[in-house]
Amino acid sequence: MKKAKLVPVRNIVIEDKFWGKFQKLVKEEVLEYQWKAMNDQIEGAEKSHCLANFRIAAGEEEGDFYGAAFQDSDLAKWIEAAAYISSIQPNEGLKQKIDEAVTLIEKTQQPDGYFNTYFILKAPDEKFQNLCEGHELYTLGHMIEAAVACYEVLGDKRLLRVVCKMADLVYDTFGDAENKRYGVPGHQEIELALVKLYEVTGKKEYLELAKYFIDARGQKDYFRQELEKNEGRRIFPEFYDYRPEYSQSHLPVREQKTAEGHAVRAVYMYSAMADLAYEYQDEELFLACGRLWNNIVKKRMYITGGIGSSGILERFTTDYDLPNAYNYAETCASVGLALFGRRMTQITRNAQYYDVVERALYNTVLAGMAMDGKSFFYVNPLEVWPPSCIERTSKEHVKSIRQKWFSVACCPSNIARTLGSLGQYIYCAEGSTVYVNIYIGNEAEIPLDKGHISVHMQSQMPWRGHVVLEVQENSGAESLALRIPEYALNYQITINDKACDFNEENGYAIVKNIESGQQIIIDYEMLPQYVYANPNVREDEGKVCMMYGPLVYALEEQDNQENLQSYYIKTDVAPEKIWSEDLFGGSYVLQAEAKRIQNGSWKGEELYSTFKPKYEDTKITAIPYAFWCNRVPGEMLVWIKEWMQ
Amino acid sequence: MKKAKLVPVRNIVIEDKFWGKFQKLVKEEVLEYQWKAMNDQIEGAEKSHCLANFRIAAGEEEGDFYGAAFQDSDLAKWIEAAAYISSIQPNEGLKQKIDEAVTLIEKTQQPDGYFNTYFILKAPDEKFQNLCEGHELYTLGHMIEAAVACYEVLGDKRLLRVVCKMADLVYDTFGDAENKRYGVPGHQEIELALVKLYEVTGKKEYLELAKYFIDARGQKDYFRQELEKNEGRRIFPEFYDYRPEYSQSHLPVREQKTAEGHAVRAVYMYSAMADLAYEYQDEELFLACGRLWNNIVKKRMYITGGIGSSGILERFTTDYDLPNAYNYAETCASVGLALFGRRMTQITRNAQYYDVVERALYNTVLAGMAMDGKSFFYVNPLEVWPPSCIERTSKEHVKSIRQKWFSVACCPSNIARTLGSLGQYIYCAEGSTVYVNIYIGNEAEIPLDKGHISVHMQSQMPWRGHVVLEVQENSGAESLALRIPEYALNYQITINDKACDFNEENGYAIVKNIESGQQIIIDYEMLPQYVYANPNVREDEGKVCMMYGPLVYALEEQDNQENLQSYYIKTDVAPEKIWSEDLFGGSYVLQAEAKRIQNGSWKGEELYSTFKPKYEDTKITAIPYAFWCNRVPGEMLVWIKEWMQ
Repeated sequence: MKKAKLVPVRNIVIEDKFWGKFQKLVKEEVLEYQWKAMNDQIEGAEKSHCLANFRIAAGEEEGDFYGAAFQDSDLAKWIEAAAYISSIQPNEGLKQKIDEAVTLIEKTQQPDGYFNTYFILKAPDEKFQNLCEGHELYTLGHMIEAAVACYEVLGDKRLLRVVCKMADLVYDTFGDAENKRYGVPGHQEIELALVKLYEVTGKKEYLELAKYFIDARGQKDYFRQELEKNEGRRIFPEFYDYRPEYSQSHLPVREQKTAEGHAVRAVYMYSAMADLAYEYQDEELFLACGRLWNNIVKKRMYITGGIGSSGILERFTTDYDLPNAYNYAETCASVGLALFGRRMTQITRNAQYYDVVERALYNTVLAGMAMDGKSFFYVNPLEVWPPSCIERTSKEHVKSIRQKWFSVACCPSNIARTLGSLGQYIYCAEGSTVYVNIYIGNEAEIPLDKGHISVHMQSQMPWRGHVVLEVQENSGAESLALRIPEYALNYQITINDKACDFNEENGYAIVKNIESGQQIIIDYEMLPQYVYANPNVREDEGKVCMMYGPLVYALEEQDNQENLQSYYIKTDVAPEKIWSEDLFGGSYVLQAEAKRIQNGSWKGEELYSTFKPKYEDTKITAIPYAFWCNRVPGEMLVWIKEWMQ
Repeated sequence: MKKAKLVPVRNIVIEDKFWGKFQKLVKEEVLEYQWKAMNDQIEGAEKSHCLANFRIAAGEEEGDFYGAAFQDSDLAKWIEAAAYISSIQPNEGLKQKIDEAVTLIEKTQQPDGYFNTYFILKAPDEKFQNLCEGHELYTLGHMIEAAVACYEVLGDKRLLRVVCKMADLVYDTFGDAENKRYGVPGHQEIELALVKLYEVTGKKEYLELAKYFIDARGQKDYFRQELEKNEGRRIFPEFYDYRPEYSQSHLPVREQKTAEGHAVRAVYMYSAMADLAYEYQDEELFLACGRLWNNIVKKRMYITGGIGSSGILERFTTDYDLPNAYNYAETCASVGLALFGRRMTQITRNAQYYDVVERALYNTVLAGMAMDGKSFFYVNPLEVWPPSCIERTSKEHVKSIRQKWFSVACCPSNIARTLGSLGQYIYCAEGSTVYVNIYIGNEAEIPLDKGHISVHMQSQMPWRGHVVLEVQENSGAESLALRIPEYALNYQITINDKACDFNEENGYAIVKNIESGQQIIIDYEMLPQYVYANPNVREDEGKVCMMYGPLVYALEEQDNQENLQSYYIKTDVAPEKIWSEDLFGGSYVLQAEAKRIQNGSWKGEELYSTFKPKYEDTKITAIPYAFWCNRVPGEMLVWIKEWMQ
C-alpha cells in the first residue's frame, strides 16, 4: 500500500476566481466574526462563552462554565483556520489573536498535562470518566489539529507542546498494557489528529494510540456501562437509551459493513482508519474503509454530498433512505466526507473519490456559510418550504435561513478551517508523479521524494472546463496525473499548444515527460445536465436534479413562483446556462422548459376534489445550491418533478 | 340555536354486513383481548398494569403503580365500550367483568370522592396540583363517559354514583367563586363528559363546570407557572419547554382561529365547545367551532380523516402541511374529529360535516385495528416504506405493522368504544324530523319530541349506494332527512317503488309525509374516482388518490411490486372496481392502468446518473386503506404519482 503525500498548506497559494473569494472572506470577515461570536459580541446570536470559559479556567476571570461539553473545540478549529489562512499572507491582527488564544490555553493546562475547560470548571472529578458524553478526546483532537497547523504554517511550537503533554497523558491512561485502562472516544476525531501529530513529531506513541483507539472500538459495550455508572450525571438527555451504533462502537471497525450512527463521528473515524491502514499496511482495515465508502456513496449520500438522513440523532438510517425535506446532512459531515475521500484517493491513487469530494465541497460545505460569512447552516435540506419548518415538529431541526451562531457551533469553524486549508485538496504526490485532483487556481511548490516541482495553475472552474498549468520549475516530477471528472463529457490536453499523448488510468490522464516551462492545458466540455437518482431512492423517483459540472442546482422561490412543488421539468429540452454577472459575484443560472399547475386552476377552497388541476407551459430558473438563501428567503427545491411524456 | 338529539345507543341494533362484523369483533374478540392486555396476559405485548394499579389502590394487592399518569382511562374506555356493546345482546361474561371493574373503582374512591390510581399510589400530595401533566381530569372525563354508558345501556347506577362524587369534588375545587381556585385540564376530555353527565343527571352544576373549564382556558399562562412550581417533578420529559398552544390554552377559546397543538386535545375540546354553544345558546362560541372546523377540514386534514401532521408532539402544524410518510394522524384524533363533526351536524342540521365524519370512521378509525381485533395502529401514515421506519430517526413514531399494545394505550379502547356506540352516528332527530346521517344497516326506535318512529334500515354501503328504509311504526315523524353524501353522483328516492318528491336542503333530501309501512329506497351511484389535493398541499402535487365512496384506497406491496413510488397512474382511464369475495371478508379492489419504472432499467449500482430510467405499462391494484397491513406486511401508498400526458 502506497500513499500519495499531501502538499503542505504553506506551499500553496490559492489564486482562484471562484474559491479565492471564499478564502478571502474567511480571512477578512469570517475569522473576525467567529472571534466575536466566541466572545459573545455578536448581537442576536446564540451565546458562546467559549473564550470566557478559557479565561475563567485560566484564573483571569470569575464565572461559571457555559456551553456544550466540547465548547473548547470551537476555539481549536478557529485557531486551525486562522493558522492556515495566515499562510496566504501574514496578518498581524490574526497572529495576535492566535497568540492570545494559545496563551490562554497554556494557562488552563494542569500539571499532568490535562486541559479542557468543561471538566476543569464543571466536573473536575469526572475527567476521562465519561468518554461517551464528555468529548474531551474529541476536543483534544481538534486542539492537536490546531497545533499542527500553527507549527506547519507559522512555525509556532507553543500549542504543539501543550497538546503533546496532554496526548502523553492520554497515551499513559488508555491502552492494552497492564498499567492502562480501556477507553475509546465517545466522538471520534482524535484518531486522525494523532496521526497528524505523529507525522509532525515523529513520535510513534501517537500513532500507536490512534491505532489503539481504532482497534479497541466496538470490542466492549463500554459506553453503556459507563452511562449506567454515571446515571444521573447525564450531559446529553438524548442519550437516555444509548445505542452503540450511534458512535460506531457496535462492532469492531473491521467488521463494519454499513455506515451507521452519527454521520460526523463516522466519517472522522473512517478517515483515521484509512490513515492507519496505510501506516500499518493493514489491508483488512483498508478493505473496511472501501466497504464503508461504497455503502455511503452508493446508498446513503445526497447528491449534494450531504450525509445523515435522520433529523433525530443526526445519523445514517438505511440504504436509499434519503428524504429531502426533513433530513440532517450536517455541514460537518460533508467536511468529514471530503477528508475521507481525499485519503481514499491518496492511498488508491484513483480519482473517483474526488467526484464525491467535489460534491461535498462545491455544494454542502459552501452552502453551509452565507456569502457574507456571517451566518451558517448546520442542517442542509434539499427542499425547504419555510412555513413548515417550525419548532416542535418533525422538521424542527430544519432552518429555512442561516443562523448567526449555534449553541453547538461546530459547523462554522469547520467551514473556515476547510476553506483555510483548501490547498491540501488540490495535489498529492507519490514517487515522481504529481496528482492534480481538483482544479482550483493556485501557485504551488510541491515537494517530491526527490526534488520538487513548482506549478502555476489557472482554472475557470466551476464555470468552464479550462485549466492552464504552467510548470515553472521541475527537479523531480516525471508525470502529472490530471483528474478527469465524471462530468467531463470529452476532453483534450495540450502541451505548449500541441496535442499531447497520455494514458488514462484510474480516472486520471497521465501526462509524462514533464519539463520546466511547459504550459499544459486541459479542456473538457461541461453541459448542464439532468441527473436521476437510483430508483431505489423512493423519495426521488419521477424527479430530476439539474447539475452543471460539480454544482448541484436548486430552484428558489425568488426566481420562480411560490409553490416550487407545482413545477415539472420538460427534460426533452436540455437546460440552458445563462451567465449572470450580478448574481453571487458572477454565476451561471440554469433555465429549463417546464410545466406548472396553473394559478387559480383549483376550484374553491376544497382540500380534496375530483377536479384535476390544469397545467401551463413555463420556464424555471435554478441557481447553484451552494448559494441558496443569499437573497430573499423562501422556498428551495433540488429534486424537481419530471414531466412524463 | 337548535340541536338534533341523538338516539340512545340501546335503541339501535346494528345489522350491517360491513360494520356489523366490526361490532361483532369488538364483542367477541376485542374486549376480551383488551381485558387480557390490561391484565398483562398478552404475550409479547407492552406491559399495561392497568387493573393491577386498581387492585393495589383498592388494597387488594401489594405493589407499585406502573404506567402512564392516565393509565386508569384505559379501563374507563373499556367499560364504556363493554357497556355499549352489551346493548346489542346481553353478555353475562362481559357484565361480570364490568361489575368487577366498577367494584374495583369503587374501592379506590377516597372519602372526599377522589379516585385516580396514579395520584393515590404515586403522588398523593400532588392531587390537582399538576393539571398540566397529571391527566386526572381527563381520566375522570373518561370515567364519566363510562358511567353514562353503564347507566344508559345497563341501567347500572353504581359507577355514576362514583363519578358524581368526584365530579362534585372537582366542582367544589375549581371555578370563579371566591372559595374555589383557577384550573383547567391539561388534556381536555372532561368538558364533553360533564355535558353528558348533566344530560343524564339533570344537575346544572356539571354543565356549569364544563362551561367554566372552557371559558377559563387560555385566560392565564397557568400551565407554565404550574410546571415551574413543579420543577423536578416532571411526568413528561418532553414538557421541558412547554408551549400553551400544545393544550389549546394559548388564547381564550373564542379567539382561536386555527387548530393548534395536540390534535386529540383539540378535537375533544372543540366537541365540548359545540355542546356548550348549544346549551348556553352561545353564538360566539359556535362561531369559533365553525372557524376551527373549517381550518381543519380545509387546510389541516388528511384525505383519510387523519389529523396531526407532526410526529413530534402529535400536533397540528401549519396550513397545507400534510406529509404522508412521517405524520402522526393518531387514531384517537380521528375518533375525536368524528365526535366534533357529529355535533356540528346536530346543531346545524347540515350534512356536510358527515362527509368528514365518514372519512374518519371508514378510513383512519377502522385502519387503527387489525381485522382480528388483536393489534392496533396509533399512528396512521399514508405512505410506508418499512425499512425506513426505524427507531431513533425522524420516522421513529411510524410503525409499519400494528402493535399488540402500547405503553400509552389510548387508541385500542377508543376504537372499541366508537364501534360499540356506532349507532349514535346514524340518526339524530329534531322536532318531527329524523336525520339519517350515515347508512349503516340497523333497527332503531327513535324517540321524538312527540311520539317516536321505528325503522329498519338495510344498507349495502360502502360497496353500493342502495339503502332500504322500512318505517315500521310512526307516531311522530313527519319528515326524514336523508343525507346525500358528497360522493353520490346522482340519486333517486322511491317510496313503495314510486319516485317520491323531496327537497334538497343542506345536503339532505327531505322526504315528507312519512307513514308506517312505507318502504323508502335511496339509490345513488358511486364510481371509483381519482381525487386530487389542493395544490397548496406541496406533498401531494402531481399525485392522485383513488377513492370509492367514502373509502380511500391504498396500494400495498403484496398486490403490486415492491417500490410503490415507481408507479404512475394513467388517469385518462377510470379505475375499475373488482369484487373480491376472499379479501377482507368481501371487498372491492380497484385496478388502474399505470406506468412503472422498468425493473433493471437503471444501469449499475450508481446512486446518481444522467441515465434516464425506462417506463413500462402495467396495472396497479389498490385495497381499502382501512384494511392495509392485514396480510403480508410491506410497503403502502395512498397518494400515487400521476402520469402526465
